[in-house]
Amino acid sequence: MSNKTCIITFEPSGLNVQVPVGTNLLEAAHKAGVYLSSICGGDGCCGKCKLIINQGQIDSRPGTSLTEDEIDQNIVLACRTSAISDITAMVPKTHSLKTGRILTDTNTHRLGELVDQVRAEVFEFDPLVYKLTVTMRLPSVRDNTADLERLYMAVREKINAPVIETGLAVMQKLSKVLTAANYTVAVTIAKHDGVMEIIDVQPAKCSQTSFAVAVDVGTTTVVAHLVDLTNAETIDAEAMYNSQIKFGEDYIHRIIYGEQEDDGFKELQSCIINDINSLIGTIASRRKIDLQDITAVVCSGNTAMIHFLLNLDSKRIRREPYIASAGFIPPIQASQVGIKINNNGLLYCLPSVAAYVGGDIVAGVLSTRIYNKTGVSLFVDLGTNGEVVLGNCDWMVCASSSAGPAFEGSGVKCGMRAQTGAIEELTINSNGDIKFKTIGDVRPVGICGSGLLDTLAELFVNGIIDRTGRFKKNSRWKLTEGGDGLEFELFSPGTDGPGIVITQADISNLIRSKAGVFAAIKVLMKAMETETEDIEMVYLAGGFGNFLNVQQAVIIGMLPDVPAEKIKFVGNTSIAGAKAVLLSKKAHETAEKIAHSMTYFDLMTHPGYMDEFIRASFLPHTDLSLFPSAQCVKTD
Amino acid sequence: MSNKTCIITFEPSGLNVQVPVGTNLLEAAHKAGVYLSSICGGDGCCGKCKLIINQGQIDSRPGTSLTEDEIDQNIVLACRTSAISDITAMVPKTHSLKTGRILTDTNTHRLGELVDQVRAEVFEFDPLVYKLTVTMRLPSVRDNTADLERLYMAVREKINAPVIETGLAVMQKLSKVLTAANYTVAVTIAKHDGVMEIIDVQPAKCSQTSFAVAVDVGTTTVVAHLVDLTNAETIDAEAMYNSQIKFGEDYIHRIIYGEQEDDGFKELQSCIINDINSLIGTIASRRKIDLQDITAVVCSGNTAMIHFLLNLDSKRIRREPYIASAGFIPPIQASQVGIKINNNGLLYCLPSVAAYVGGDIVAGVLSTRIYNKTGVSLFVDLGTNGEVVLGNCDWMVCASSSAGPAFEGSGVKCGMRAQTGAIEELTINSNGDIKFKTIGDVRPVGICGSGLLDTLAELFVNGIIDRTGRFKKNSRWKLTEGGDGLEFELFSPGTDGPGIVITQADISNLIRSKAGVFAAIKVLMKAMETETEDIEMVYLAGGFGNFLNVQQAVIIGMLPDVPAEKIKFVGNTSIAGAKAVLLSKKAHETAEKIAHSMTYFDLMTHPGYMDEFIRASFLPHTDLSLFPSAQCVKTD
Repeated sequence: MSNKTCIITFEPSGLNVQVPVGTNLLEAAHKAGVYLSSICGGDGCCGKCKLIINQGQIDSRPGTSLTEDEIDQNIVLACRTSAISDITAMVPKTHSLKTGRILTDTNTHRLGELVDQVRAEVFEFDPLVYKLTVTMRLPSVRDNTADLERLYMAVREKINAPVIETGLAVMQKLSKVLTAANYTVAVTIAKHDGVMEIIDVQPAKCSQTSFAVAVDVGTTTVVAHLVDLTNAETIDAEAMYNSQIKFGEDYIHRIIYGEQEDDGFKELQSCIINDINSLIGTIASRRKIDLQDITAVVCSGNTAMIHFLLNLDSKRIRREPYIASAGFIPPIQASQVGIKINNNGLLYCLPSVAAYVGGDIVAGVLSTRIYNKTGVSLFVDLGTNGEVVLGNCDWMVCASSSAGPAFEGSGVKCGMRAQTGAIEELTINSNGDIKFKTIGDVRPVGICGSGLLDTLAELFVNGIIDRTGRFKKNSRWKLTEGGDGLEFELFSPGTDGPGIVITQADISNLIRSKAGVFAAIKVLMKAMETETEDIEMVYLAGGFGNFLNVQQAVIIGMLPDVPAEKIKFVGNTSIAGAKAVLLSKKAHETAEKIAHSMTYFDLMTHPGYMDEFIRASFLPHTDLSLFPSAQCVKTD
Repeated sequence: MSNKTCIITFEPSGLNVQVPVGTNLLEAAHKAGVYLSSICGGDGCCGKCKLIINQGQIDSRPGTSLTEDEIDQNIVLACRTSAISDITAMVPKTHSLKTGRILTDTNTHRLGELVDQVRAEVFEFDPLVYKLTVTMRLPSVRDNTADLERLYMAVREKINAPVIETGLAVMQKLSKVLTAANYTVAVTIAKHDGVMEIIDVQPAKCSQTSFAVAVDVGTTTVVAHLVDLTNAETIDAEAMYNSQIKFGEDYIHRIIYGEQEDDGFKELQSCIINDINSLIGTIASRRKIDLQDITAVVCSGNTAMIHFLLNLDSKRIRREPYIASAGFIPPIQASQVGIKINNNGLLYCLPSVAAYVGGDIVAGVLSTRIYNKTGVSLFVDLGTNGEVVLGNCDWMVCASSSAGPAFEGSGVKCGMRAQTGAIEELTINSNGDIKFKTIGDVRPVGICGSGLLDTLAELFVNGIIDRTGRFKKNSRWKLTEGGDGLEFELFSPGTDGPGIVITQADISNLIRSKAGVFAAIKVLMKAMETETEDIEMVYLAGGFGNFLNVQQAVIIGMLPDVPAEKIKFVGNTSIAGAKAVLLSKKAHETAEKIAHSMTYFDLMTHPGYMDEFIRASFLPHTDLSLFPSAQCVKTD
């Protein structure tokens, strides 16, 4: 790499960055704030980081995932291309991860309902961190108790606090604050493990407000909700892509990155900390809230993400016997990992069950209250992985299928996240007419999870694909040959750029995903001798979008064949659970009980899983008797 | 100050330092490691930082404390002199604080006895921090509990630990250590406030050793003892002058310095932290001990010193109503203040009673066990201040006299600390023959506390001074006129330099000190209606030296007139108490109970104190009936 620099401009956003000549374009894109998909983490095999080079000199190795047509059209893989001169590159619409608005779920009716339910019906409002105003007697020669002990006495007059702890920073500023405030102060208190910790002491006049942030630390997206701790209201929310994506789309690739690079894990930690700081900073400045008034952050995420966040050793998560460094993580000072809130504010993480069933799933169980119901519930979280919980108030079992993020739009040619322009609903009638709805009702740019579910089900129901998922070649449907094999066009823009298609490879990916999820469900059901009719409720969580036709999940054989009214799409339960914990110590304790009481099944070493997976790799399944609902399907 | 530098060489040590031209010589001396006395903190009024300029150009303002003779002899006050060129300066023998060996009390019979007593008879050996070796089952697919929870389970199989806490740093390294050690590890555990804190986890093979350090953070000297936590043995000890001395000899001047200078309190903190690190580093390297194996430091010191150590706000210690920031300080990570031991090692501070009765006095009460005796005891700690405790198992009262450090040798012309060359015993017979013994049996260079006590008593008993402390002018004793008024020569070196004298001003200072102490005792005795004959034991603590003739303290009227066998010199009880706390949780709890139960009398605002002080400003007292023992005194 020379000392010369060049400017890389990314269209259509116009974002640009100055980098040394020889810089890899994937790296340049991330530096410029342009988030390209990268499933393989820069190995050149996933073909997701495509760029069209409009201008400038490059040094590029095509790799196997580009077609000759694509090479002719100046399409390159960013991860295998370096800049020789100033470059102007176009990001194909379907391949960029927009930095724009991701659905944060605050405004969705369903999640609002869910959070309110959790709060009002189950857990009393008793936030993890709160402010208490106390007035002390003024010191005098006859009453010369030191300031800290004086404060403790005043706190103990108001609340039961046998053990109080105070960190050095608060002790150091205590006298100044007490004298300035004439001994009437707002004390920010956190309770954990029977200990009351004094997080901050401020003059009572200045500060009656108190805020906290719930964060869903997803593998792909990070969502933050700001909550007012005085009245439990959610004030604002913000979301962004997890900037660790540049190191691999799934967390296994990120662990590999961390192991291979010097300071790789530190980089991963910096990414997620910066993301969280950026979300909190954006909300705080929009709402004109002082970061010092934010005194707690509760993070919910899978085990690997929480390890990255705290820079715990995550290496053994990907190696048998798949061990986490810690499942139950005590609250730490947020500043210890660089989260910018109150200097003494705390960071709580929801407890995890195992290396592949994390705090996000515990949050899901907490939000859906399946731990509290007599009837058996099934909980499925379909994100970058597919985690499954089966249980009731007496027992709970869980497992994680290595489903892959197909239903999040990854590994699917025109797949995308649930954001503006994504096809979120799709029907094909018997004449072959395709109708769809996009998020924002704009011209379609790709397909999100709910749209993919619809597409797979509709292709199957209309006999366009057979039970193995293969396109029927001699049918009346028009198929074209694309780079990834046969393609079915869902939307044709005419002459203006490429259409939106679903490919044979996409369908295989989606079927693998759904088969993984269903096999996990079956393993748990068999182990607990649960029949389909025993299941009283199925909760489906994930970032599908807002309008999920849950019945389609049964038609393709992803969920057991229960009546539609028993299936409920519950959205982002990870953030809902984090918020419940933030607002109630009881919810926090319940989350810990849930994590303790769940039995984990490791599918990678489970003798029956592979058989179940193969049986589920058909539409809907090899055993049709399991899916009476799917009898509407044309099997001509 | 120019950019030019010059070299300042201090004789007789030969220590030198390169400093910018214009640098103050007191500052240069401290940089060179030459500790000059400085009572006033550089105000130019105490006259303790004298230097003889042998060579070089200076800019000096004489001030009022130099005689014309001294000015003629090229004597300057370092604090009022700056360097213009390279300088060679001689430090007068009596005015240097030697960096050599200070008595650390480890080898003294008395203190050894005392510490052993405390340990064997009262407190079971149960150190604040200890190592526990645990072996865990190896993780497997069927037993995939995370490492932290696995560790907790193993710890709980061995000890009762309802609440365990672990900091981020230990969590971060946990997996690596457990796998490297094949799940057999030594866990360093600290208990406080009902919480077990895991401070460190190391492979069991590497580390069975465990050490801690007790520190007496004195205003003038800092003493550290290294203790083996596996067998309670004291391995080594080290002492040095508190390098804050350059900011003032007493802590009130240091607080003033802190208030006046930007970052003044940070400087004060750095000084004491560096001193402690230096002591620990010296011992550890001498004993070939890894600093990581030192897992706790227990500090005992007066309230101001502990505030400086932690950089707590000490401003109000010197202002009515004299309030400390904190009396009971929770253990903190030693690294938070920069103490270099195990990264997660803890710093404990003994609790204080009030702004002027600190943890060092609590340590004294703990060591002497007066809190546990039916009979009334009197405890007097004569250091830079003079603190007094009166009490028994039912009640304890305490006060601090602003005695000043006269008995530590400060404010006394030939006064010095108890170190080699100090006169520690002195007698004058009726012929006027003076006999003395020096520490190390070398040629005398000054007089330490026990020698000053002897001198004052012998001058009085032999009628050389009258009851007001004034030299009897027309007596047969030879007096000379010096810069500070009349002087009495205790040792004449012949032609080789100045002799060792006691001046009229010295005697006044010593009488003020003893009067302050006795007045404090009387105020407490009156308040508790205690008569002299009610006192069963008097414990005298302080850095007097090893051989204190306690009866002399009665003769001069510093202690109540009790039989000699009831007075016990107990040496450095501050370090003894710190060590007791280090070695026993029970002792730690007892120290807290002591601090809680003592009633503090503020003498500065006490209506009777000044009267008592004036009555005590005679030898032995205005009321001779209080001192029948003093009837041996010649009153011709």
